[in-house]
Amino acid sequence: MRAVDLIAKKRDGEALSEAEIHFLIDNYTKGIIPDYQMAAWAMAVYFRGMTDRETIALTEAMIRSGEVIDLSDVDGIVVDKHSTGGVGDTTTIILAPLVAAAGVPVAKMSGRGLGHTGGTIDKLETIPGMRLDLSIQEFVEQVNRIGVSIVGQTGNLVPADKKLYALRDVTGTVESLPLIAASVMSKKLASGAHSIVLDVKAGKGAFMKTPEDAFALAKVMVSIGRGLGHPTSAVITDMNEPLGYAVGNALEVREAIETLKGQGPADLTELCLTIGARLLTLAGAASGEEEGYRRLERILGSGQALEKFAQMVEAQGGNPRVTEDLELLPKAPVVLPVVAGADGYVAGIDCYRIGHIAMVLGAGRATKEDRINPAVGIRLCKKVGEPVAAGELIAYVHAATEQQGLEAVQKILQAYRLSDLQPEKPPLIHGVEF
Amino acid sequence: MRAVDLIAKKRDGEALSEAEIHFLIDNYTKGIIPDYQMAAWAMAVYFRGMTDRETIALTEAMIRSGEVIDLSDVDGIVVDKHSTGGVGDTTTIILAPLVAAAGVPVAKMSGRGLGHTGGTIDKLETIPGMRLDLSIQEFVEQVNRIGVSIVGQTGNLVPADKKLYALRDVTGTVESLPLIAASVMSKKLASGAHSIVLDVKAGKGAFMKTPEDAFALAKVMVSIGRGLGHPTSAVITDMNEPLGYAVGNALEVREAIETLKGQGPADLTELCLTIGARLLTLAGAASGEEEGYRRLERILGSGQALEKFAQMVEAQGGNPRVTEDLELLPKAPVVLPVVAGADGYVAGIDCYRIGHIAMVLGAGRATKEDRINPAVGIRLCKKVGEPVAAGELIAYVHAATEQQGLEAVQKILQAYRLSDLQPEKPPLIHGVEF
Repeated sequence: MRAVDLIAKKRDGEALSEAEIHFLIDNYTKGIIPDYQMAAWAMAVYFRGMTDRETIALTEAMIRSGEVIDLSDVDGIVVDKHSTGGVGDTTTIILAPLVAAAGVPVAKMSGRGLGHTGGTIDKLETIPGMRLDLSIQEFVEQVNRIGVSIVGQTGNLVPADKKLYALRDVTGTVESLPLIAASVMSKKLASGAHSIVLDVKAGKGAFMKTPEDAFALAKVMVSIGRGLGHPTSAVITDMNEPLGYAVGNALEVREAIETLKGQGPADLTELCLTIGARLLTLAGAASGEEEGYRRLERILGSGQALEKFAQMVEAQGGNPRVTEDLELLPKAPVVLPVVAGADGYVAGIDCYRIGHIAMVLGAGRATKEDRINPAVGIRLCKKVGEPVAAGELIAYVHAATEQQGLEAVQKILQAYRLSDLQPEKPPLIHGVEF
Repeated sequence: MRAVDLIAKKRDGEALSEAEIHFLIDNYTKGIIPDYQMAAWAMAVYFRGMTDRETIALTEAMIRSGEVIDLSDVDGIVVDKHSTGGVGDTTTIILAPLVAAAGVPVAKMSGRGLGHTGGTIDKLETIPGMRLDLSIQEFVEQVNRIGVSIVGQTGNLVPADKKLYALRDVTGTVESLPLIAASVMSKKLASGAHSIVLDVKAGKGAFMKTPEDAFALAKVMVSIGRGLGHPTSAVITDMNEPLGYAVGNALEVREAIETLKGQGPADLTELCLTIGARLLTLAGAASGEEEGYRRLERILGSGQALEKFAQMVEAQGGNPRVTEDLELLPKAPVVLPVVAGADGYVAGIDCYRIGHIAMVLGAGRATKEDRINPAVGIRLCKKVGEPVAAGELIAYVHAATEQQGLEAVQKILQAYRLSDLQPEKPPLIHGVEF
């Protein structure tokens, strides 16, 4: 078998066999197939796509390129949730204890963020004392004891993806549905989850700009999961404005805790209940979406989800009193109001800009080496569709310095678009790919 | 400017600017842009194509990557001819003295062959004493003195093409019209020719399998030549059977000399007159194709072309008596007849197989390091459309050993396809791209 022949085969629109795909990925990971051949293959895939069988084989080959976490010692069906990434997305922090409180074990490996804002691990690290670097044994024991744990990714998971992603990033081959789907799913499945619900974001603040694109990506990912024997489904959700009100690590943890108390933003709460209901259904802990949704609503209302969160924090060395005293979270020295300059309705909040402003404040990383400032960020007060009056508060900036805060205030004003007419608001949930 | 953005631009179907193309080629040649980015770009070009402006800019950038031969000291308009490569193609050896005998200077740089059979340089080297490694000064002086010289490629011409072609060869990106055209034309133009006639082959024995594909390639090459200020035209010719009867270096030189005497194969003679007539027209030495054709026919008949060939051989250190005594050329120790096994008409001669058989006999190179055996090859006796009777001679094998000869005989029989009905023969000249 020669790599050049496989490139030409794909270039000519033919599907590669499983053996051919394994040959490519195995030898690329080992450094036998050079970058330039994989780059040409990736560009051919960009134009020709891949069949479901090819995409499944690619995912499997990538999983096998490194370690695979073995969660077979966890009692019950381990569920996992993955989001394709948005701004102000705290769903994992809410969902994990919420679903665990309903009796379904959640053993969640999560990444750090690169880009706009921190990842789930960065957010949870803002809780004083919290450890995110458990060993696999500690992780499994904790899930068996209290039903939930969230830890940072460990071990040499999917080295093929690390190498291929870095190559795609510099060769214009990132935007290929099968390559995106295989990248996401290989990492998920190598992390040991059994059943998976994917939150695929659509909109200006997401990688997929339209619901159609998001559905297409969801379809491929679901077929990979199922093809490899994992119950998988996807919820396609809107990301045209930030989710909830908070953007920034400690601010988002605060909002997650408020949501676990049943006092969270409506959109964030609805999204968590929707995804949670699907997780319960996949795990066989609910007979359907509606029953699952209602049950999780009750759990949220009863304080059981908050209690489970506190257990998780304590088990991982964090201070569980944070659920009662939000003042224990890091606080920014400067908090500045952002005030509307005119009357109108909020017609749009530029998600990408809000994320970028938060990053510049210190809430995210421009490069892998950057350190995050846990306290800084933005708390929105008005969201799309709401009326505002000139002089009315629309957001708060939490900054490290007055100077940085003032710059952010100016930029936030530019990120808000006002109109005279009340805009139509897109639905939060665009649909579900079963 | 970043290479990744230019790859994405081409991937999305946009044309790159001249500056962008120069940026890519310059930095690739210098080793600043890595192979993997050029491979991705080449694959994007494969799918998206290039505009004429882009292809012209690419050719220019490639020419500028290395030395350019300066033929401005040659008196008159230097013409050049290029063939996209076929089996048994000796046209250059006939055309150069033929056109020179008509008063148009021919300063021809030629390559060695890689593949089926030798190149023009390998063929001329079979003439005892012949030097093909003249310096540029010697080359120019000879053209000024006798009107013609053929030499091997010298200097560091188009290093960008060498690097890019090697990359394309292993990344499935050879078969892209603009990349093929820019590769051919950059080498031609860097060799210093002013006016160019391209012989674009179409058929089973050629790179372009159909006349349509050959016309498409011709169109791009002609527009590059003209775009860079060089009168250029192309003749699209058939390569479904070998040209002439001889395949192999000394055998082809023998056939060229016979043709220069006016006793050559009809197809080879017609092709030389057709291309020669265009060269005369481009150089302003004939008012049109027909006049040029007739004039060259007269020159061939008068012995002036043969005389010019002898002058060239002598000027380059070779024995000019070869034109009178063909026995001076190397001869194979074994000559075996190939005899038809049945009655019928020759319906096809597999050009690719004939070329391959000749290569295995030693007439061509499988790798760059292989040495050519000048004497070996095949001399066909029957061509497409001719009737044959069982037991009748259809070809001769010229081999180094009895064993190799016998193997070739078997394979030649398989390369001939006989039929009961007389087949329709495709025209030799499919057309002209002005």
